[in-house]
Amino acid sequence: MSKEFSFDEIDILKLFRNDKTSTSFLNGIGDDAAVIKIKNQKLAVSCDSQVNNVHFKFEFSTISQIAFRAVSVALSDLAAMGANPLFFTNSLHIPKGFSKRDITLTKKGFTDAEKRFNIQLIGGNIASSKVFAIDVTVIGSLDNYIPRGSLKDEKIYVSGNIGSANAGLNLLKMKKVDKQLVEKYRTPIPKVELAKRLSSKGFLSSMIDITDGLAIDLERLVKFKRKTLGAQIEWSMIPKSLNLEKYFSNKKIFEMVLFGGDDYELLFTIKKNKQKSFEDYVKNNNLSVFEIGTTNTTGNICISKNSKVIKIKNGGYVHKF
Amino acid sequence: MSKEFSFDEIDILKLFRNDKTSTSFLNGIGDDAAVIKIKNQKLAVSCDSQVNNVHFKFEFSTISQIAFRAVSVALSDLAAMGANPLFFTNSLHIPKGFSKRDITLTKKGFTDAEKRFNIQLIGGNIASSKVFAIDVTVIGSLDNYIPRGSLKDEKIYVSGNIGSANAGLNLLKMKKVDKQLVEKYRTPIPKVELAKRLSSKGFLSSMIDITDGLAIDLERLVKFKRKTLGAQIEWSMIPKSLNLEKYFSNKKIFEMVLFGGDDYELLFTIKKNKQKSFEDYVKNNNLSVFEIGTTNTTGNICISKNSKVIKIKNGGYVHKF
Repeated sequence: MSKEFSFDEIDILKLFRNDKTSTSFLNGIGDDAAVIKIKNQKLAVSCDSQVNNVHFKFEFSTISQIAFRAVSVALSDLAAMGANPLFFTNSLHIPKGFSKRDITLTKKGFTDAEKRFNIQLIGGNIASSKVFAIDVTVIGSLDNYIPRGSLKDEKIYVSGNIGSANAGLNLLKMKKVDKQLVEKYRTPIPKVELAKRLSSKGFLSSMIDITDGLAIDLERLVKFKRKTLGAQIEWSMIPKSLNLEKYFSNKKIFEMVLFGGDDYELLFTIKKNKQKSFEDYVKNNNLSVFEIGTTNTTGNICISKNSKVIKIKNGGYVHKF
Repeated sequence: MSKEFSFDEIDILKLFRNDKTSTSFLNGIGDDAAVIKIKNQKLAVSCDSQVNNVHFKFEFSTISQIAFRAVSVALSDLAAMGANPLFFTNSLHIPKGFSKRDITLTKKGFTDAEKRFNIQLIGGNIASSKVFAIDVTVIGSLDNYIPRGSLKDEKIYVSGNIGSANAGLNLLKMKKVDKQLVEKYRTPIPKVELAKRLSSKGFLSSMIDITDGLAIDLERLVKFKRKTLGAQIEWSMIPKSLNLEKYFSNKKIFEMVLFGGDDYELLFTIKKNKQKSFEDYVKNNNLSVFEIGTTNTTGNICISKNSKVIKIKNGGYVHKF
């Protein structure tokens, strides 16, 4: 949302990425969550920031919703690792004018998240600042670590409707209300249980959560290990809320679905030799997952729509600094 | 440093403190670090924020020093638990105008901390904000958890000079330089190894790190479990840098030592039945620890100076919001 800077998050990540892994730090910087090992117990750790007027606005959400969302968003990174979330800490940056009631409402958002996700707030820190912000760090146990490594000709799936959260945000800006879409933006529910099941069964070759937009996160997913990999997805196969058409043009819907972000749905690829057992498992357990395309070796991310193939550039939402 | 608010950190802590402990969360909110248990492995987790113009100023420290200090300060909470620090994450809040070089220098501060403390940066998050801030979360293993529980008539110790860091900050404000004092403010080195040794030997009844000032942290230490406990310390026994007298009046030195804060030294009490073996251990291992007083049941925190006894009120540095 803020594009004042001359370099972006990917550039910054490169600066940090040189960090080596070790026998106790298994995946290196750049994955959704860090995977560490302490005395044979694998843990996944991730942190995420919510900054006023960058990641949220008080006019669009209550303080409790903002606090809840701060936990959700951090948790989504653990979901993407197939981890079992256990604990979180928070750092609050509190501006002048914040009342005790505001703090109580912030706490309520954390308590709601504790109940909803069966996790526990274990501590935090409170600092004075000119800008209200919440930094959440989540910690979970990890029994089945999936190193990101899609191969060619693997099927690509998502776990639910794409574009709804961004539609909800746009509706709030337009001062319109559609409960389903707006809630998907305000209080996203990461698919933790689904992710745990899929990773425990060994189906996955790679998984990510959709944060910055389907297009950019798909690129991150398939190119994480191999720059030569690409993907082609089919517009009609991407699950979308029917409500989108009530409020937005086709062009806008296309943009929101591909580049909107804030979905916090899972995006994953299935190992070729597990495809059949995955399909059986999905059917037998009535799981909500949606095939949207296939990986390939073109090195490009493409989408087919009405029999036309469109190449997607780095148009997804990248945090600009 | 910011006193614009009508309530303070202690009030806020009370709101959060109701949180229950559980079999996997051993100490409840309010301790220096959270103690959690994952499959029989105890871990200590703590987070700390450094916000521009609240916790540091660019005119007093380089960006690398600020980043190093952000890790130090968070690590000091782990030291206070006797934990073995292993990993840390950071959330960076970056304002407009920050250059790539600034980010590289921030990263250098983290790398310096990794080397100095033998810990590993495992991940982070970068957000745009109007205010530069660094939130660090540290994770360590914990073999000997010391629940805070001083009893009466126990001896009180500190691990090094008190007041130096605050003196260093004051000198920077006065545009004077004294390398030793200024470094103690800019790049504090938490006493992690000492803390680990003391806790592994079972000497400690309670320990805390001095963050907000000797007086207020002494009160937190002795009253954590029992509000009826008190302490009396002796001014002449508190270790202080001789350099303080070069720059400051006796009155100012008294204030800096008792209420200055930013010391990041350990403050602890020794179990009565371990006092003799502790003294032997200190002597045999040539450890740098300093007895400064004794706990009692007066419910007050007092200091004797030139044979006068002064009762200390809540005058220590408490973050005001």
